[in-house]
Amino acid sequence: MLSDIEIARAAQKRPIPEIGAKLGIPAEALIPYGRDKAKVDEAFIAGLSDRPMGKLILVTAINPTPAGEGKTTTTVGLGDALSRIGQRAAICIREASLGPNFGMKGGAAGGGYAQIVPMEDMNLHFTGDFHAITAAHNLLAAMIDNHIYWGNGLEIDERRVTWKRVMDMNDRALRDVVVGLGGVSNGFLRQTGFDITVASEVMACLCLSRDLEDLQERLGRMVVAYRRDRSPITCRDIGADGAMVVLLKEAMQPNLVQTLEHTPAFVHGGPFANIAHGCNSVMATTTALRLADYVVTEAGFGADLGAEKFFDIKCRKAGLKPAAAVIVATIRALKMNGGVTKDNLGPENVAAVTKGCANLGRHIANTKGFGVPVVVAINHFATDTAAEVEAVRAYVAGQGCEAIECRHWAEGGAGAEDLARKVVQMAEGGSAFAPLYPDDMSLWDKIDTIARRIYHAGDVIADKAVRDQLRQWEAAGHGNLPICMAKTQYSFSSDPALRGAPSGHTLPIREVRLSAGAGFVVVICGEIMTMPGLPRHPAAENIRLNAEGEIEGLF
Amino acid sequence: MLSDIEIARAAQKRPIPEIGAKLGIPAEALIPYGRDKAKVDEAFIAGLSDRPMGKLILVTAINPTPAGEGKTTTTVGLGDALSRIGQRAAICIREASLGPNFGMKGGAAGGGYAQIVPMEDMNLHFTGDFHAITAAHNLLAAMIDNHIYWGNGLEIDERRVTWKRVMDMNDRALRDVVVGLGGVSNGFLRQTGFDITVASEVMACLCLSRDLEDLQERLGRMVVAYRRDRSPITCRDIGADGAMVVLLKEAMQPNLVQTLEHTPAFVHGGPFANIAHGCNSVMATTTALRLADYVVTEAGFGADLGAEKFFDIKCRKAGLKPAAAVIVATIRALKMNGGVTKDNLGPENVAAVTKGCANLGRHIANTKGFGVPVVVAINHFATDTAAEVEAVRAYVAGQGCEAIECRHWAEGGAGAEDLARKVVQMAEGGSAFAPLYPDDMSLWDKIDTIARRIYHAGDVIADKAVRDQLRQWEAAGHGNLPICMAKTQYSFSSDPALRGAPSGHTLPIREVRLSAGAGFVVVICGEIMTMPGLPRHPAAENIRLNAEGEIEGLF
Repeated sequence: MLSDIEIARAAQKRPIPEIGAKLGIPAEALIPYGRDKAKVDEAFIAGLSDRPMGKLILVTAINPTPAGEGKTTTTVGLGDALSRIGQRAAICIREASLGPNFGMKGGAAGGGYAQIVPMEDMNLHFTGDFHAITAAHNLLAAMIDNHIYWGNGLEIDERRVTWKRVMDMNDRALRDVVVGLGGVSNGFLRQTGFDITVASEVMACLCLSRDLEDLQERLGRMVVAYRRDRSPITCRDIGADGAMVVLLKEAMQPNLVQTLEHTPAFVHGGPFANIAHGCNSVMATTTALRLADYVVTEAGFGADLGAEKFFDIKCRKAGLKPAAAVIVATIRALKMNGGVTKDNLGPENVAAVTKGCANLGRHIANTKGFGVPVVVAINHFATDTAAEVEAVRAYVAGQGCEAIECRHWAEGGAGAEDLARKVVQMAEGGSAFAPLYPDDMSLWDKIDTIARRIYHAGDVIADKAVRDQLRQWEAAGHGNLPICMAKTQYSFSSDPALRGAPSGHTLPIREVRLSAGAGFVVVICGEIMTMPGLPRHPAAENIRLNAEGEIEGLF
Repeated sequence: MLSDIEIARAAQKRPIPEIGAKLGIPAEALIPYGRDKAKVDEAFIAGLSDRPMGKLILVTAINPTPAGEGKTTTTVGLGDALSRIGQRAAICIREASLGPNFGMKGGAAGGGYAQIVPMEDMNLHFTGDFHAITAAHNLLAAMIDNHIYWGNGLEIDERRVTWKRVMDMNDRALRDVVVGLGGVSNGFLRQTGFDITVASEVMACLCLSRDLEDLQERLGRMVVAYRRDRSPITCRDIGADGAMVVLLKEAMQPNLVQTLEHTPAFVHGGPFANIAHGCNSVMATTTALRLADYVVTEAGFGADLGAEKFFDIKCRKAGLKPAAAVIVATIRALKMNGGVTKDNLGPENVAAVTKGCANLGRHIANTKGFGVPVVVAINHFATDTAAEVEAVRAYVAGQGCEAIECRHWAEGGAGAEDLARKVVQMAEGGSAFAPLYPDDMSLWDKIDTIARRIYHAGDVIADKAVRDQLRQWEAAGHGNLPICMAKTQYSFSSDPALRGAPSGHTLPIREVRLSAGAGFVVVICGEIMTMPGLPRHPAAENIRLNAEGEIEGLF
């Protein structure tokens, strides 16, 4: 059995112009980055705006467990399968963050025979988009401190600078820092911190912007600090929005690569799935939709977080109408949702699988609630038994839905053709997509709606300060924004240990944050880490070039 | 009269494979980055090792003044002129740092009709090399704090961690910081700081390495901290060297672009010219020398710092033998060296020019002292008068040397053909290059030799602690390293106001630092700033995309 990296290295990649040609992208509209990556020219994209859009397929999943679900793998497998059955298909996924690869072994490009290549590049610098975001973010930070240094004409309250710095690195020592030591020439002492780059609001803005003009508007609106009277200071007040757009000009153009089976794949943007919306860029998705008949994309975490934000933030704001959704589950992950520990996933356990199906059932009902047709993909694993698979099929049938076993990990697109045919059938049947709540609902009611309808919470609690803050934002004109929930991905509740389908739990809101540029209100339930740390033995200790110049230890 | 940026935008660039073909680089050895930049494949470069080397021409200058000398412009003009007179020529210069462009208007690619393009890219992300260096540097920093966090098995003295973090941004608030606040999970409180990326020892290592193996060796040797017993901890002890090389794999490959006249230009690496050696990479220079008959390159600051380090660090370590040197001067800059203020440079002032020639004369003698033939290039400016130019010619002739007026800024390579012919004549005559001091001289004597022979200092002073430190390093086996002087670039002395050719001054050594990976001892005379700040009105406030999508305000 070959490892993912061995399969990826053995891949016979086609020249990128040939991949672009499958979608009708002329070679001159592809800007090469290395030998097997390209950006799609913004002028070409601008010229597509009156084309009709293809069908958008969302791949989402049950609540993640350490057993793994294979959401990206299924996204890739489905894209390849759609190509195989004669559809003009494209895939859209997020870019990987560089830093975390040096902590734990990485690999965010699918697996087995359902991978996107070049895998190494995608897990390292790729086309430099994240570096550009880091630079743009930190330019704004430097300009804020510089403004204070040179007289603070805007009367920024130094204690209320909310804009931190970012780095694409797992570096816990930077979470909480004091800057400006060393005397007069270094500015004013101030406590602040660093987030990892994917947590930057610049990333969320880039991923939700239609074009560079929209990007500048969004960046300009970002709130970076407050005055003593609590009035906000924006990025535009600091005068950084123009220079930030210049830094992000190339990064805004979607990246085109390919699957092992040469299906075009747009890999672009990668916002955090907790404090942001966790999907690839609107630019990539809309570009793909104007070029392909079927576009397969994915959302972060399980459907309770990922699909809800995909529908309520990305689709709402970009005017996208998903045609169908695939919910990925594995027998192993369902067993864990049914109470089995990770060490006992091997033996057949139909009872546990059936019990765990409650989690799957909740996601099916929730997703259908958005008016989108749903199919379940059982991502095959070697230890699955026929009885276990049959138990899932029967359960899902009872929910008025179909579960299809997929073997794309081992067989590539050929292993997901049944799924592809079902997806086409559903998508041709039409979708009645609608977001969960209207724009003009109050912020608190939006939170309450998500908590009760999606999480099945019995109650939502928050300090008066949180409710007052929401009302202040409504008064300031931000009441029409959607909600971005930051909650554990492991449970419908805020308790990561509560697997399955808990009901009637209480959802505690700890904090709310305004992302005025990205265009959502972040609601934080529990501890959310925006700067990871490295483990005791970081993967970096074993990452190196071997004698053949190949990268070892990264995967 | 068109501005630099207007000229650059109007450039008719040739496809990069055509530029590579001029040097015999096959298209498949060029890795494209965007439409008009490429990296040269490391495997192709490795295959060149038994080729003979062309002739290396150094462009250096008198001490810089606010009037400007045009060293890069002359480097480009000379390269173009050599092409015009039928030589197979290539240019090697440094990459620009991104951060400073957001402070003052940038532009590090020559000027007028002697420019390298694409100018915008070169002043922004270019091919991502500096971002890779930032990431590699900061990975090591994160791994050091992570090592301490997880038990500090190496017994690092937290007060003696010398490895700081870097960012390619002018951000004075980061010069001096405390990290690790926020309790147990964020590690140990520690005072540290950020330098700008070009000041990273990783940058110096990359620029002095022969290949990736050499790079890993150098990175591994870097000293990052000390124990309580003062024994050093290296990057290799931390286990970061392998992963850093993986991050730097692409960055090690030289970047190929072109001049306005389509002469091949390698733009690669950009170490600080004070605490590092200030030249483009050895990889770029040796690659160019194996492909071209003439390679024109430049060194940072004036010849007292730049040329001395080029000869004593880069050429010594890489085994390069420069064939000739060009010292660039302008009438305006000579006037300033002769005591005229910046506001009074317009009117003819032969006396001041003649007086300022003392500075030029010292550089001529110093450069000849390395055994390298020298010519002076008078970089023409509109206000120069015939009498002023004649005064310089006469003075230089008196030094046994020739001064040639050049008009490449206005005329491109055609304006530097006389210079090119002289350079060819000198280079064909042979060079007797030798470094200033032997490897086995004591560190203190090396410093003393540079101070007396190059700066004409009367005395060198330092605290006992500095001399003890040098002796400790000698005992630890670092005594054979060359010296990297960090001194003001504005004067032969350590006093920036002392223009002309001062003698008998005292050179005070404030501090010495070991760059064990790069392979030199940094000797600091005066205040050296390794993290710039932004001015009151940063250029960033006016940088933006215009309605045509062009970048405004960057140049």
